Amino acid sequence: MGKWTDQILIHGQTKYPPSKGDCYGSSAGDVLAVHLDPIGVIHTCFKEKFGIPRQSNLVDKAPGMLEFFPEFARPDAVRGLEQFSHIWLVFVFHKAVKKDGTWPVMVRPPRLGGNKKVGVFASRSPFRPNPIGMSCVRLEHIEYMSKGPVLHLTGVDILDQTPVLDIKPYLPYSDRLDTARDGFAPAPDNQICQIRFSDTAAAQIREREKSIPNLRAIITQVLENDPRPAYSNAQFSSIKKDARTDGWDNERVYGIRLFDLDLKWQAAGNKIRVLCLDRL
Amino acid sequence: MGKWTDQILIHGQTKYPPSKGDCYGSSAGDVLAVHLDPIGVIHTCFKEKFGIPRQSNLVDKAPGMLEFFPEFARPDAVRGLEQFSHIWLVFVFHKAVKKDGTWPVMVRPPRLGGNKKVGVFASRSPFRPNPIGMSCVRLEHIEYMSKGPVLHLTGVDILDQTPVLDIKPYLPYSDRLDTARDGFAPAPDNQICQIRFSDTAAAQIREREKSIPNLRAIITQVLENDPRPAYSNAQFSSIKKDARTDGWDNERVYGIRLFDLDLKWQAAGNKIRVLCLDRL
Repeated sequence: MGKWTDQILIHGQTKYPPSKGDCYGSSAGDVLAVHLDPIGVIHTCFKEKFGIPRQSNLVDKAPGMLEFFPEFARPDAVRGLEQFSHIWLVFVFHKAVKKDGTWPVMVRPPRLGGNKKVGVFASRSPFRPNPIGMSCVRLEHIEYMSKGPVLHLTGVDILDQTPVLDIKPYLPYSDRLDTARDGFAPAPDNQICQIRFSDTAAAQIREREKSIPNLRAIITQVLENDPRPAYSNAQFSSIKKDARTDGWDNERVYGIRLFDLDLKWQAAGNKIRVLCLDRL
Repeated sequence: MGKWTDQILIHGQTKYPPSKGDCYGSSAGDVLAVHLDPIGVIHTCFKEKFGIPRQSNLVDKAPGMLEFFPEFARPDAVRGLEQFSHIWLVFVFHKAVKKDGTWPVMVRPPRLGGNKKVGVFASRSPFRPNPIGMSCVRLEHIEYMSKGPVLHLTGVDILDQTPVLDIKPYLPYSDRLDTARDGFAPAPDNQICQIRFSDTAAAQIREREKSIPNLRAIITQVLENDPRPAYSNAQFSSIKKDARTDGWDNERVYGIRLFDLDLKWQAAGNKIRVLCLDRL
């Protein structure tokens, strides 16, 4: 970009009074702080970080509901949104903030097996300088309640009770980049685990599906993507484990809080066995 | 979602001390405010709102440079980012904030001809409850300077000097939704304008392209998308204008500040004529 580069390479000089949404500057001209008010909160089936899909739509049945705070609970504000099949949620990674304000400069993305570090800006890690997340999720329908509209969503990958900052329609003509290249590999669907259910778990799921539709599919998709930390996964892969049914006894039992359930399961290599679903 | 819906439809109850990135709650349990520090600023060719493309990549040659503020100017923080062809920028619409904190509940998207209102959350309008923007742009290369890395970008649709909150890689496997449906119509490429250059403008462009590569292509793309307000566009379309060369005299002259230039042009129907490029 040659000469143009040299001309404009100076810091921003915007300066404003410190009110809502404003950016204001130091004497050096740097923008210092932005104040934002969450517009609402999303309720999801994911009650803890462990088990949350690494991206949206990996668990395409995973439900979520977006509820607006009173100031933003205006039916007119979502008018026309139902014409879009998918929407972006911009939210706060509210459980990924370090109290001392520090941020990791490099992270180990699970997709790279957990043994390769990349810059935080080359990752979608929740631990980042500004803990902002964005996910595109499917908009199933809008329910108009007396207290305001509620968005019913699927394909969510967001922790329950997450504060939401913004909603935008997914615009295929600008957001769907057919030429985009992702240098990292492999994609997650190369690592699918095989899921089996114990008789106990299968019976419990049949019972709970009366109130939680698609529970079996949701559990299957959550576990297929192998929620174990990547280093644990790599460790399991490198050691030849005995994955016959009678070889499970020595395997660690994992728990994932999903809906109001504590999902208990074991893993050996790329095989996962669901043991039971305890009520929380 | 039946019974599960009833169970969890309550506000968030997260409560934190008010430090960086935190969300903290009122007694009612609502999350009240989020504090964020911009990580840097983007320098672009768009010096005013008028003329900025309505989405990223519509003007695929439009350049931008992202410069980090000192605290975030760490080469390690962008390590690996160059493996991605496109990145998301999350930024502040710093010129779209009303001082009184109000926000428009409904807006008139230009794509709908400016005569139909939709909810602000069904639009990508910069005027929104939290003035956060997101654009996916092409990452051309990273320049490592003594003061930190500088990202060289194209396809930008962002005002010069905009504060940037976050950078994320564009992940085709989760961001490129092949099934996404956009109920609004028409897409912008249905409304392409025909661009002509006066002899003066053509000569000026040839001269300025020595320091600003692709200037003619950038100007063409900016004007092809018709930057005029939609109501003006509609007005022009409905009236049969005389668009012969000798009929331009009565047309309004528009100016767009682009790079260090004041681009002067006229429009009649879907024909646009570039008059000249004055130095600012």
